Amino acid sequence: MFAHRIKKLQQILQEKNMQALLVSRDANRFYLSGFELQDSQCNESSGCLLIPARGAAWLLTDSRYDLAAKQVWPEEQVKIYGKNRLETVAALAKKLGISKLGVEAVGLSYQDGQKLGREIDLQPVVDVVENMRLFKEEAEIEAMSRACALNHKVYELLRPGLAIGMSEKEIAWEVEKLFRENGSSGLNFDTIVGIGPNAALPHARPGETKLTENCSVLIDMGGRFDNYCSDQTRSWWIGDSPAGYFTETLDLVREAQARAIAAVRPGVRAKELYAIAQDCFARHGVAEYFTHALGHGIGLETHEAPSLNPACEMELRVGMVITIEPGLYYPQWGGIRWEHMVLVTEDGARVL
Amino acid sequence: MFAHRIKKLQQILQEKNMQALLVSRDANRFYLSGFELQDSQCNESSGCLLIPARGAAWLLTDSRYDLAAKQVWPEEQVKIYGKNRLETVAALAKKLGISKLGVEAVGLSYQDGQKLGREIDLQPVVDVVENMRLFKEEAEIEAMSRACALNHKVYELLRPGLAIGMSEKEIAWEVEKLFRENGSSGLNFDTIVGIGPNAALPHARPGETKLTENCSVLIDMGGRFDNYCSDQTRSWWIGDSPAGYFTETLDLVREAQARAIAAVRPGVRAKELYAIAQDCFARHGVAEYFTHALGHGIGLETHEAPSLNPACEMELRVGMVITIEPGLYYPQWGGIRWEHMVLVTEDGARVL
Repeated sequence: MFAHRIKKLQQILQEKNMQALLVSRDANRFYLSGFELQDSQCNESSGCLLIPARGAAWLLTDSRYDLAAKQVWPEEQVKIYGKNRLETVAALAKKLGISKLGVEAVGLSYQDGQKLGREIDLQPVVDVVENMRLFKEEAEIEAMSRACALNHKVYELLRPGLAIGMSEKEIAWEVEKLFRENGSSGLNFDTIVGIGPNAALPHARPGETKLTENCSVLIDMGGRFDNYCSDQTRSWWIGDSPAGYFTETLDLVREAQARAIAAVRPGVRAKELYAIAQDCFARHGVAEYFTHALGHGIGLETHEAPSLNPACEMELRVGMVITIEPGLYYPQWGGIRWEHMVLVTEDGARVL
Repeated sequence: MFAHRIKKLQQILQEKNMQALLVSRDANRFYLSGFELQDSQCNESSGCLLIPARGAAWLLTDSRYDLAAKQVWPEEQVKIYGKNRLETVAALAKKLGISKLGVEAVGLSYQDGQKLGREIDLQPVVDVVENMRLFKEEAEIEAMSRACALNHKVYELLRPGLAIGMSEKEIAWEVEKLFRENGSSGLNFDTIVGIGPNAALPHARPGETKLTENCSVLIDMGGRFDNYCSDQTRSWWIGDSPAGYFTETLDLVREAQARAIAAVRPGVRAKELYAIAQDCFARHGVAEYFTHALGHGIGLETHEAPSLNPACEMELRVGMVITIEPGLYYPQWGGIRWEHMVLVTEDGARVL
């Protein structure tokens, strides 16, 4: 699988007349090698791949990962660097006859880019490996289907346990336990739980606010399965007497979602999907409360391309997986978001 | 607290003859504003601070965080950017009369640095806010003491529950549950659990290997408390008959740790502490199996300066918190690491 992907990348490098690409973004590195999906901190790399347009690819890492690297990569193609990480990368590149090194412009810090640029000519590129990752392979679709099925299951298991008096923090922890105890390796993002007005913050951090007799709660959650991410949001009313604003807003949000999903097909542009949801809200006079993008690609990372925003020209293609998550937010009482993951198919879409 | 820190930073900027600093590293941003400690992905920023050397500081973020930003920052000093994030930053800086903008060279991607540099002259700096964070304030020391006390408690609660047949993954999940159920907001790094030979990988990822009648297990774990990190490692023998290699190696590691801790005092250099552990191992002929740094600073992030490695010239000062974690690793049977967190005091050190 990795050999196949590297070969494909090398073809792309050849087409772009690039001599090599230094893969330093963690998810890209994992996609091409199986080595370490997530760096522990953004300012700490657990390693990078040096992929020449032709010939064997190298995995470079530090001594902490020596054995781990050799478990996934041919020993003779692993290079352990010490303190002089960037100098080691540049020296290896030169030894391989590379005079101009492609780098991932968003996968390198400004400092590293400047330093590396003093050692070897750089050719900054964006989205080379990301564009490969847009199109999910069979095994990836299988993993994402299972990740999403688990997400559905966690909502099912969670709902009956939501009791008056539970805090946002307690609900978030319940979500995490359900994911982990049902096969997830971990959450792919911090669970968002917003009770009542707190749901008006699209990225609400769970706090001490508690469920009351009649209240709304928004839960946005995702757990990894086989390394792949899931992402779904539900907005529920707790109690027997849903407020009018809740049911009306929920209907609008679900209508916008249904319209957008119905429009998913190969060839439609990301911004067109956004416009469909936006138009739906505008017809009901609530477009100003739709304050974020309609959705995003998802895979090894929670947020991948395309972003379904008004400026994104990208056309959807078979094999892409995106979220469709319209929302309406009112500081007075909260907000509603409803989200599904959708696979683009030849016929249109399959909701996962 | 935040006003005080910003004022201090502004004094530093004035001393450095800098007009302003754009704070884009997440932990630095949180340290100075209380806004969002961790970005969700390394390629996604939830916002930045524009801090002129004199005058009011600005918090810039996107619409998802509009309300959240205004909960922690004066509304008139919050700027919401759309798609043109970097252009908005540059335009605001110019409006404030800034012609040369300090940027955090490790807190900006190569792409962002290049783009921003086309809008306004940049002055890349490193470690400006990080150097403030080196010295923990009273409240920070209190939070870290409590974080570390919780870490101790989790080890105590964990030990009796370790039963033959438990897998590394199960142990890691038990660790996480104990942290969360005893007051932690979450782990600050993925728990490392290595049974038997798996402990030879200093960053072992928990797998399906199970505890047996007589075996060693290495556990490295940390949970946040009041936003601050903890980090401790223990290596335990499971069963009544510890192997000779285990007890002998453990004695060596603990001896090296004790010697290093005894040497902690204001004025000692990071590399001197490393050398003390290294010398201890060398005298016993095992230095080649000590394959990583002796420890690191810790605070809002797991890994902060200084790194206790052979090249780090930084002198320890009162108020710094570091880990001391020597280890010896043998591919044949595993490894031993033992770690404590240490506060540098006027008299020497206080083990947390």
